[in-house]
Amino acid sequence: MKTKAKYYHAGCPVCIEAEQHLAEALDPWRFDVEFIHLGEEKDRLSEAEAEGVKSVPAFVLEGAPFHINFGASLEDLK
Amino acid sequence: MKTKAKYYHAGCPVCIEAEQHLAEALDPWRFDVEFIHLGEEKDRLSEAEAEGVKSVPAFVLEGAPFHINFGASLEDLK
Repeated sequence: MKTKAKYYHAGCPVCIEAEQHLAEALDPWRFDVEFIHLGEEKDRLSEAEAEGVKSVPAFVLEGAPFHINFGASLEDLK
Repeated sequence: MKTKAKYYHAGCPVCIEAEQHLAEALDPWRFDVEFIHLGEEKDRLSEAEAEGVKSVPAFVLEGAPFHINFGASLEDLK
């Protein structure tokens, strides 16, 4: 069974660069990556916050948040 | 041919967490990941700086730096 991974972004240039290089580099045999645009899916902001996400772009892998560079803070997306 | 990726770290807890979750999640069919401990391989600090790395842990994928969370700044490793 694949591990579910989340990639939170907001369509920003930093987000797109990280998506193209890193999110698409994950092993497709092991990970099922869900892409969540927090600028458009604002009802998922609280879910991201509960997982420890402070800014986008960020991955959540096995419950742990990994912020990639800095695109925008979650506060700015509210 | 595999794409060469670099993972710069310093053995710090944040570095180890990112390594276990993210560095090992990369597709092994497409990426050949080199792990570089900048605390021990100080002669490679200038190489990391030239690639735009400001802190560890960080990936360099196809020439682009991706900082993961924050473990230590490169300045602190000199």
